[in-house]
Amino acid sequence: MSEIPTLINQVRNKQPLIHNITNQVVVNFTANGLYAVGAAPVMANAIEEAADMANNADALVLNIGTLTTVQVDAMIMAGKAANKKGIPVVLDPVGVGATPFRTDAAEKIINSVKLSVIRGNAGEIGHLAGLKSDMRGVDAVSQANNQEVAIEASKRLGIPVIVTGVDDVITDGQEVFVVHNGHSLLTKVTGAGCLLSSVVAAFLTTDGGLLEASTAAVSFYGVAAEVAAEHTSGPGTFQTAFLDALYQLNSDVVKDTIKLETYTVTAKEA
Amino acid sequence: MSEIPTLINQVRNKQPLIHNITNQVVVNFTANGLYAVGAAPVMANAIEEAADMANNADALVLNIGTLTTVQVDAMIMAGKAANKKGIPVVLDPVGVGATPFRTDAAEKIINSVKLSVIRGNAGEIGHLAGLKSDMRGVDAVSQANNQEVAIEASKRLGIPVIVTGVDDVITDGQEVFVVHNGHSLLTKVTGAGCLLSSVVAAFLTTDGGLLEASTAAVSFYGVAAEVAAEHTSGPGTFQTAFLDALYQLNSDVVKDTIKLETYTVTAKEA
Amino acid sequence: MSEIPTLINQVRNKQPLIHNITNQVVVNFTANGLYAVGAAPVMANAIEEAADMANNADALVLNIGTLTTVQVDAMIMAGKAANKKGIPVVLDPVGVGATPFRTDAAEKIINSVKLSVIRGNAGEIGHLAGLKSDMRGVDAVSQANNQEVAIEASKRLGIPVIVTGVDDVITDGQEVFVVHNGHSLLTKVTGAGCLLSSVVAAFLTTDGGLLEASTAAVSFYGVAAEVAAEHTSGPGTFQTAFLDALYQLNSDVVKDTIKLETYTVTAKEA
Repeated sequence: MSEIPTLINQVRNKQPLIHNITNQVVVNFTANGLYAVGAAPVMANAIEEAADMANNADALVLNIGTLTTVQVDAMIMAGKAANKKGIPVVLDPVGVGATPFRTDAAEKIINSVKLSVIRGNAGEIGHLAGLKSDMRGVDAVSQANNQEVAIEASKRLGIPVIVTGVDDVITDGQEVFVVHNGHSLLTKVTGAGCLLSSVVAAFLTTDGGLLEASTAAVSFYGVAAEVAAEHTSGPGTFQTAFLDALYQLNSDVVKDTIKLETYTVTAKEA
Repeated sequence: MSEIPTLINQVRNKQPLIHNITNQVVVNFTANGLYAVGAAPVMANAIEEAADMANNADALVLNIGTLTTVQVDAMIMAGKAANKKGIPVVLDPVGVGATPFRTDAAEKIINSVKLSVIRGNAGEIGHLAGLKSDMRGVDAVSQANNQEVAIEASKRLGIPVIVTGVDDVITDGQEVFVVHNGHSLLTKVTGAGCLLSSVVAAFLTTDGGLLEASTAAVSFYGVAAEVAAEHTSGPGTFQTAFLDALYQLNSDVVKDTIKLETYTVTAKEA
Repeated sequence: MSEIPTLINQVRNKQPLIHNITNQVVVNFTANGLYAVGAAPVMANAIEEAADMANNADALVLNIGTLTTVQVDAMIMAGKAANKKGIPVVLDPVGVGATPFRTDAAEKIINSVKLSVIRGNAGEIGHLAGLKSDMRGVDAVSQANNQEVAIEASKRLGIPVIVTGVDDVITDGQEVFVVHNGHSLLTKVTGAGCLLSSVVAAFLTTDGGLLEASTAAVSFYGVAAEVAAEHTSGPGTFQTAFLDALYQLNSDVVKDTIKLETYTVTAKEA
């Protein structure tokens, strides 16, 4: 746990190659964000080379933000290549539940590829796990619910999840990490969640454990947002300052700023 | 009319979901610009979900900047879903006239979907309305011509139009609104026109009338550009400052800065 | 040679239309960078209009960063239209060698389209020319090797090449131009190389010779990076300042800042 703030140094030393099959909206911001963190991005969506490129990479990110049928096939081919190579695979189920096509695609990916972790907001993760009817509605979820959704979804899916929102929850259904960092301007920059999924993938190439490395990524990201917001007069300057912060932020500042809560789910809660 | 500067407040309160089927070049900037204005963007181009996503939305934008044949079909499916739901549909005929494919696609969309308003430059709107031979050439059109093109095109197409340039004209062929705000650096940022089309869509979800809401969007956008240009040393810092200005600009500043001219086309001119 | 720093003025006066068939990651940055330099960008990838759009343009850029099979066909159609019209064609073989699909595509383009110049890093250009086995590995190439790779690759391919890295080399295998400008932050902005390829295309529409115009583009770009880096605290602010610098930089500053070395390959070296 004490190494969580320092895992960024491993990312920067290793410069892992992160293969992103992601949506058109965020592809540029994701590549720039990965460079800023110290990783190397590659964005290769085509079915003709998705598996070959995954086989070159240190981690794979599958993001369903602007899917097509052929893109789903490319994701599954890349995912299987990544599984065969033994590298981490992160799923970002953007907007799952918004259309039947998107929901079916996410389920198909989950059933075909062994995922390391799934990152989304409470509505997305809850929908994936079939919690929809248990929820008060995506927009109405409280922080308590954020943690409940994460824990219950991880148990049902059998996969660790990261639920991000005002607070961020990382859990495998037993161990729970809650990060209280971040800034509201992140919600005004398109792709802030998508980039985080890719940053998580970069941290998963370190020797931190899965939950610890995910927590390191989420807290590093949140502290960078806080630093960036200090020099900001709106979402335009924030986005620019955020890339600078991801590039410059060192582990000492993370250590001093991180607001982390951890607990284990008790039998009663389970 | 007096409510034009205040319609931005309705956009921010309502946070309308704007579905954009738009081009690859501007998709990120459009999403960030809609967030900045206070709307919520969704960019779903795939034919597999275009209609379903339009059915979730409060307004639809069809932008032909990087078309393919299947994309035209997706636009028409989304447009019909939007028409059925009764939400506004904005067409941005980017580069119409540049290639036969683009021209055919724009005509197919116009013939298949009931549009609320079409926004483009004088060359694009003139071409759409078959005014090409009447024009002195796209680059040579004067401001007088800008208004003539808008009025004549709207009459011929039977659809309200927004012609943007040094001055911006909003008209249904009878009522004419001319906005004298904006800044030349907008022409150095790719997607400045495309984002405006999406901002118009956001304003069309307010209870302003169609011409008033369009004029509110255009004038808000122009004033934001003027504010942004004050803190700018080129197109890079301008783009960043412009997103900040879209986010921060309040209706009082718009009220004080708007330069609006209105008139009704007389029988003689008609 | 003495006109190299002043060719930017010809670009700005001519405002050449540069048709880019490029990858999804960099398409927005490329368009904004071309506007900043004073050129006019058009990004039309669809096979339905690629040839027609190339026929409108003053130069064509083919960038294989996010290829599909149909995209290769569109590039060849556009390339043949450009050859027929007699406008310059620049190839950017992004990531060639990373996957068999990408390598095959690059070879197919080279065999089908008459190229003016190919721009890439030493690994890409070396791979294209079959120099792989002669190299110490992409990451290990020294500056001396950078020049060796460029000279040998140009001879084997029979096409002028631009090899960019810490120093940039422009050569047709006989005349060699080495530019010692630039800044390391360029390597932290996705698409910095891709945009340079498009800026080269813009300079090729001037009346400088091919090697001189390419050198003018590369040195202008490098000096702009140096200027931008002065006002920068990371890759976010650098990208913004770089667009400003491309827009504002004048030929006098280039003349004072350019670090250019030229030589002719002797018989012994050849």
